[in-house]
Amino acid sequence: MGDYILPVELHNQIVDAAYQTRGFSPDEAAQATRFCQLAAWHGIKTHNAIKALHLDDLFGSGNKNNPGCVPNASIDVIPSKFKATECWDANRKLGQAVAFQAIDRAIELADTYGTGIVSVDHAFHYLWGGGYVMEAAKRGYIAYTCCTAALAEVVPFMGKYPTLGTNPHSWGFPTTNAIGFPIVIDWATSTVAMGRVQQFLREGKQLPPDSAVDKDGNLTQDPSKVSALITFGKHKGYGLALINELLAAFTGASIPTLRSRPERIPTGTNEKTTPNFFFQIIHPEALSSHNFLNNRSQSDNVKATIEDIIGHGNDDCLLPGQLEHQAAQQSQQAGGLLFTQAEIEEFKQVATAANVPFNTNALITT
Amino acid sequence: MGDYILPVELHNQIVDAAYQTRGFSPDEAAQATRFCQLAAWHGIKTHNAIKALHLDDLFGSGNKNNPGCVPNASIDVIPSKFKATECWDANRKLGQAVAFQAIDRAIELADTYGTGIVSVDHAFHYLWGGGYVMEAAKRGYIAYTCCTAALAEVVPFMGKYPTLGTNPHSWGFPTTNAIGFPIVIDWATSTVAMGRVQQFLREGKQLPPDSAVDKDGNLTQDPSKVSALITFGKHKGYGLALINELLAAFTGASIPTLRSRPERIPTGTNEKTTPNFFFQIIHPEALSSHNFLNNRSQSDNVKATIEDIIGHGNDDCLLPGQLEHQAAQQSQQAGGLLFTQAEIEEFKQVATAANVPFNTNALITT
Repeated sequence: MGDYILPVELHNQIVDAAYQTRGFSPDEAAQATRFCQLAAWHGIKTHNAIKALHLDDLFGSGNKNNPGCVPNASIDVIPSKFKATECWDANRKLGQAVAFQAIDRAIELADTYGTGIVSVDHAFHYLWGGGYVMEAAKRGYIAYTCCTAALAEVVPFMGKYPTLGTNPHSWGFPTTNAIGFPIVIDWATSTVAMGRVQQFLREGKQLPPDSAVDKDGNLTQDPSKVSALITFGKHKGYGLALINELLAAFTGASIPTLRSRPERIPTGTNEKTTPNFFFQIIHPEALSSHNFLNNRSQSDNVKATIEDIIGHGNDDCLLPGQLEHQAAQQSQQAGGLLFTQAEIEEFKQVATAANVPFNTNALITT
Repeated sequence: MGDYILPVELHNQIVDAAYQTRGFSPDEAAQATRFCQLAAWHGIKTHNAIKALHLDDLFGSGNKNNPGCVPNASIDVIPSKFKATECWDANRKLGQAVAFQAIDRAIELADTYGTGIVSVDHAFHYLWGGGYVMEAAKRGYIAYTCCTAALAEVVPFMGKYPTLGTNPHSWGFPTTNAIGFPIVIDWATSTVAMGRVQQFLREGKQLPPDSAVDKDGNLTQDPSKVSALITFGKHKGYGLALINELLAAFTGASIPTLRSRPERIPTGTNEKTTPNFFFQIIHPEALSSHNFLNNRSQSDNVKATIEDIIGHGNDDCLLPGQLEHQAAQQSQQAGGLLFTQAEIEEFKQVATAANVPFNTNALITT
């Protein structure tokens, strides 16, 4: 038996109700739903509705001691003299709603100025950065985002103690006309995620080399001994993880090791425990010399470049974003979103809690 | 015996004369000299004057069949409706001169718009990207640059044939007030450079794992069997190397495997064989929420973040840019630029060719 096919409409009805039941506004719920559909459509198992709602339980509106996310919060745009950039105080508004809105605003800025930046303070986890840059790329823009992860789980290169987040970076390029889908480069700066360590532990497997350390800071491949993660590519991944922390620090973040850890804040001091976002859009015309040889358009030129890179016998190469594109084609063929039986059972619980009728027996499988 | 101490003034006199002898204008020679001083002052052995002039011989003004660099070339600013971005046709002008000017222009744009971008077509190798972002960071700005390398020497992830450059990325952050020097994250997207492979070959050493492939596309640590390099961090470094090619393709670059290889251009077609640059500046105030806790200034906040990251027993951690800062301190203490005996002997040849008196016996050593 293959995957279950969950019709988009039913998926969206369940997710929307789940968010509204938690107190989010119809607009916030709509943005959360839009995001979950986007993730599931593109095969992003790590950040679909099940994970998004689980995260909201743990760190978001469900965390009554330290709610990382506050339903119905409003964004404040910080006054600034600069024309192509904005800084927002998100006031812990739902991450997906803030991120979609920030991309929209950065696109407006890029339409006038060639590029636009939105930095965001007091944010909540936006889940899958690749989704936002993918959407922007489908709309014809070059897009970039990075954020600080919710927890400091990663040891800096040559260090022992985790002081960095898994700090992901996501770049999207408008290559749909050239190759049929947007190139989306999207990954964390740790070799693996902590969720992956737990998965290896459950499955009794060893971790890949150079992915984690034990409590003494020594490399380990034994998931039961993992105390912290390490960055990919030694000092290079470390440098990339620092970028997120520095952009966040210039924006307004507090101490990385206090993020999502209010219990660690020294008495008598006040520190933020929220992540930060950074978004940038570049209008592709703003980069253009308008001088592409052999009668190529800009898009033709990008196509010729990509074909050269994956040509010359490099047939086994995948382009970043290609797997997501293939997953989207599978969703299209199936006529709905593909979920495993375990995921459908979790959906059942979500639907029940949100009072949405959900007859899993009526679902067909691939 | 330690290093030779070459007084800055004498170094600059030799380098300036060497560039002017090659036909570069006084201003171009001054920018080339400024760059070589900056590199040597910060201990950048791979991109000091010796290497810069060698590169100009091989690929630049010295390459009579396909001069990658043309003395006295002028930059054309491409007309554009966008306000915070510019695209330049560098007409193969000296890379260092173009890069310093592009950073200046991007800073002007960022002063008004919060951020500024300059993309450059028809460029020549700018050598050490870290130098430009370091200077911008010392002036108080967040800076980024990337370029396409002169040759396609790197195999895309899962591929066999080299179609990507070593495509470096460089980020600079204005952290001098916070920690005494700018953080400069600066590296190629290949695990090692081809020059390093030749060095291993000379020294009879094995390469680090996961750095190169043989002619059949299989991994090898034997430098004599190396046919091409691979990206660091598997698909992640591959993604980063693609970014440079895509930004270049949107700007106006031709086919990556034809770069610096005019002999490969099919008859009857016309292709560029030049690299491209991308520069971006962000004004740090443009990111700011103006809400830093515990009475911190923005710089104090950045300092608190960095101290947290390299605190908690992470004493062995270096910050990116710290080694360059230490080298600068050594230059300061020595009262000049530090070179090995072999380098000084090469300087002697450069000085002789440029008719500058250079008495190596008068140099003192550390």
